[in-house]
Amino acid sequence: MAGADQEAVRNKQVTLKHYVSGFPKESDMSVVTSSISLKIPQGSKDTVLLKNIYLSCDPYMRGRMSKSDSPSFVAPFQPGSPLNGYGVAKVVGSTHPNYEKGDLVWGFTGYEEYSLVTSPELLIKIQHTDVPLSYYSGILGMPGMTAYAGFHEICSPKKGEYVYVSAASGAVGQLVGQFAKLVGCYVVGSAGSKEKVDLLMSKFGFDGAFNYKEEPDFDAALKRYFPEGIDIYFENVGGKMLDAVLLNMRLRGRIAVCGMISQYNLEKPEGVHNLMQVVGKRIRMEGFLAGDYYHLYSKYLDMILPFIKEGRMKYVEDVAEGIESAPAALVGLFSGKNVGKQLVVVDGK
Amino acid sequence: MAGADQEAVRNKQVTLKHYVSGFPKESDMSVVTSSISLKIPQGSKDTVLLKNIYLSCDPYMRGRMSKSDSPSFVAPFQPGSPLNGYGVAKVVGSTHPNYEKGDLVWGFTGYEEYSLVTSPELLIKIQHTDVPLSYYSGILGMPGMTAYAGFHEICSPKKGEYVYVSAASGAVGQLVGQFAKLVGCYVVGSAGSKEKVDLLMSKFGFDGAFNYKEEPDFDAALKRYFPEGIDIYFENVGGKMLDAVLLNMRLRGRIAVCGMISQYNLEKPEGVHNLMQVVGKRIRMEGFLAGDYYHLYSKYLDMILPFIKEGRMKYVEDVAEGIESAPAALVGLFSGKNVGKQLVVVDGK
Ligand SMILES: NC(=O)c1ccc[n+]([C@@H]2O[C@H](COP(=O)([O-])OP(=O)(O)OC[C@H]3O[C@@H](n4cnc5c(N)ncnc54)[C@H](OP(=O)(O)O)[C@@H]3O)[C@@H](O)[C@H]2O)c1
Ligand SMILES: NC(=O)c1ccc[n+]([C@@H]2O[C@H](COP(=O)([O-])OP(=O)(O)OC[C@H]3O[C@@H](n4cnc5c(N)ncnc54)[C@H](OP(=O)(O)O)[C@@H]3O)[C@@H](O)[C@H]2O)c1
Repeated sequence: MAGADQEAVRNKQVTLKHYVSGFPKESDMSVVTSSISLKIPQGSKDTVLLKNIYLSCDPYMRGRMSKSDSPSFVAPFQPGSPLNGYGVAKVVGSTHPNYEKGDLVWGFTGYEEYSLVTSPELLIKIQHTDVPLSYYSGILGMPGMTAYAGFHEICSPKKGEYVYVSAASGAVGQLVGQFAKLVGCYVVGSAGSKEKVDLLMSKFGFDGAFNYKEEPDFDAALKRYFPEGIDIYFENVGGKMLDAVLLNMRLRGRIAVCGMISQYNLEKPEGVHNLMQVVGKRIRMEGFLAGDYYHLYSKYLDMILPFIKEGRMKYVEDVAEGIESAPAALVGLFSGKNVGKQLVVVDGK
Repeated sequence: MAGADQEAVRNKQVTLKHYVSGFPKESDMSVVTSSISLKIPQGSKDTVLLKNIYLSCDPYMRGRMSKSDSPSFVAPFQPGSPLNGYGVAKVVGSTHPNYEKGDLVWGFTGYEEYSLVTSPELLIKIQHTDVPLSYYSGILGMPGMTAYAGFHEICSPKKGEYVYVSAASGAVGQLVGQFAKLVGCYVVGSAGSKEKVDLLMSKFGFDGAFNYKEEPDFDAALKRYFPEGIDIYFENVGGKMLDAVLLNMRLRGRIAVCGMISQYNLEKPEGVHNLMQVVGKRIRMEGFLAGDYYHLYSKYLDMILPFIKEGRMKYVEDVAEGIESAPAALVGLFSGKNVGKQLVVVDGK
C-alpha cells in the first residue's frame, strides 16, 4: 500500500471475545496478530510507545470482563480490543518529556507485544534494576503497594496482634504475611493446596497455615488456629470465609477489605450473615485500592529494596511463557492454578 | 416472721419467664410482686438503693432474652429474675461515698420499682434538673450518647454531605438527623409509618423522609432520595436495607453500624450480598457502642443542654404508664409501635 509504514512490526494481542458471565475460560479471549508502527503517529503529544516485557495477571481483571450495569472503579474491557492492565515495559519511543527511549517502566499497558500509551501518568519509571525486573509486576508494583497500604495504612497493626490472611500465598497475601511478621504479629494464612500451605510455613515464615479446601467448617478451623481470636483480617476472598472470620474477630478488630475473589464469578454474590458482630466487637471494616497510595511508593521502595537484597523478604512468582499463554494464566487465578504472583513473560522461550 | 424487716416495701418486678426465640411477646415476661427492704443490708459496701422513676426500653435488650451460645457484649437475662437495663432513679439509700439519699441518677438499674445496685460505677449522677427528667433515658442518656458518638466520632461528617438514617424517628435516629442538620448535611430518614415520616419532616427538620414499608424496592427508593449517592449511613436496621445502601454509597462513604434491629428476631440473620462495594468505593464500616464514649458525656451535655433549652433540639418520647406496661412497651419496639423514645414511667397514673 502506498505510504505503508516501513517500521511496522508484528503485534500479538490478547483480546476479549465477548463479555463473560460465570467463570472465565481461555476461549473467552483470543490471541490475534496485528501490526503496529514503531513510529509514534505525527502530532501525538505526550505519547509513549512501549515494548511490553511482563504482563501482570490480576483478579480484578475479571470484573472488567463483564458488561457492567453499575459504574465500577474501572471500566470494562471492550470486546474485540486487547485487554489492558499492569505490566513492565521498555520505552521504544516517546513524545512525552518525562520518558525517553530505553527507559524501563511499570504501570498500565496493554496485553500485547507493543502498546501505544496516551496516558503515561499511569506509568512509573523504574530506577532500581539490581533486583529482578519482573518484581515490578509484583512485590515492587501494584500488588506490593496493595499489601503495604492495606496492611500498614488500613489495619493499624501492633506487635503481638493476631493476623489472618486469606489467599495467603498469592501476589498480595505472601507479602501481607511477611509484613505482619516484620511488625511482630502472629500470622496465619490459608491457601488452596498443600504445596501453597508448605510455602507459607517454610518460605514466608507464617506461624500457621491451612488448606481451606480441606476444612468443611471454616469457623472451626479459625477457632483452631486462633484460639484467642483475630485482631486483623486481610480479606482477599469474601463469602463464607468472611462470615466465619466475623465470628472469630476480637474486640476492636480490623478487616482490610482488599478483594473477594470467591465472589467474582458468581451471578449473585453470597450473603454474609454475621455482620452484627461488627457492633458488639466494634469492628472496623474498610475497603481500599492500592492506586490511592502511590504517593507512598518511594517510601515503600526505601523500606522494601534493602529487605529484598538482604533476603529478608521473599517473593514467589509463577511465570507463564509467551503472550499466547496469557489467557490461561489469567483464567488460572480463579481456580488457584498460580503459585505466587502470576505473570506472563511476553517474549516466551 | 421474727426479725422481719420493718422497712420492707412492695417491689413489683418485670421478670423474664424463659429464653425467647423469634419475636418476643408480652407473655415472655411476667410482672411479679416481691418485697424489698429499704435498709441496705449490713456490711454491704459501695451499694446504692434506687427507687426507679423511668425505665428505658432498648432494642439491644432483645439479645439478652436469648440464651447465648457465643459470648456477647452483655450477658443474657436470667429466667425468673427481673430484667435490667437503663433507667432514671432516685437514691433512697447509699453506702457508696459518691451517692447520697435524694440524688438523681441515670444508668444501669432493674426493671422493678426498687433496685439494690452493687456496681454503682454504671450510674451517672444527674446535675441538671431544669430539663425533663425523662430525657436522661433518651437524649441526655444512652441513646443521646449513641447518636453523638456514632455520628461525630464514627461518621466524620462534613458540611454538605449526604446522610441517610434508618429507624430515623426512634430514640437514636431523631437525634442523628438533627445532629446532621447542625453540621450542615443533607439528611434523609426512613421510618415505618406516615406519622413517623411526618414527624421527621415537620419536627426534626429532615430534608427528606420515606416510609420504607411502602417501598418494594429499597434501592430504587434510595436512588430517588439520593440521586448523588450517600456519604454517611447511620445503620440502625441491617439486612435488606444495608444491602441497598451499599449500592448507593459514594466514594469514601462511611457506615456507622449502630444496630440491626431488623435482624434481632430472626433465627438466622439475612445475608448481605453487596459488600464488594466496600472495596471499589473505599467504604469504611465501623461498629461502635455508646458505652465506650461516656468520657465525652460532659462535653456532650455542654453542647446539648443549651440546644434543648433554646428549643433547637427536639426530642419526642413515647411514655408508657406504669411498670405493668413495660413488657408491652419493650416488645412494641420490634413492630415499631413506639413513636420516638420508648420509656416507662414506673409509677403510672
Ligand atoms: N484493593 C486493591 O487495590 C487490590 C489490589 C490487588 C489485588 N486485590 C485483591 O486481592 C486478592 C488477591 O489478589 P492477588 O493478586 O494476590 O491474587 P493471587 O492471590 O495471586 O491469585 C488469586 C488466588 O485466589 C485464590 N482463589 C481463587 N478462587 C478462590 C475462591 N473461590 N476462594 C478462595 N480463594 C480463591 C487462589 O488461591 P488458592 O489456591 O489459595 O485458592 C488464587 O491463586 C484478590 O481478591 C484481588 O482482587 C485488591
Ligand atoms: N451501638 C449502640 O451503642 C446502640 C445504642 C442504642 C441503640 N442502638 C441500636 O440503634 C437502633 C435504634 O435504637 P433505638 O433505641 O433508637 O430504637 P427506636 O428506633 O426508638 O425503636 C426501634 C425502632 O426500630 C424500627 N424497627 C423495628 N423493626 C424493624 C425492622 N424489621 N426493620 C426496620 N425497622 C424496624 C421501628 O421503627 P419503624 O416504625 O421505623 O420501623 C422501631 O420503632 C437499634 O438497632 C439499636 O439496637 C445501638
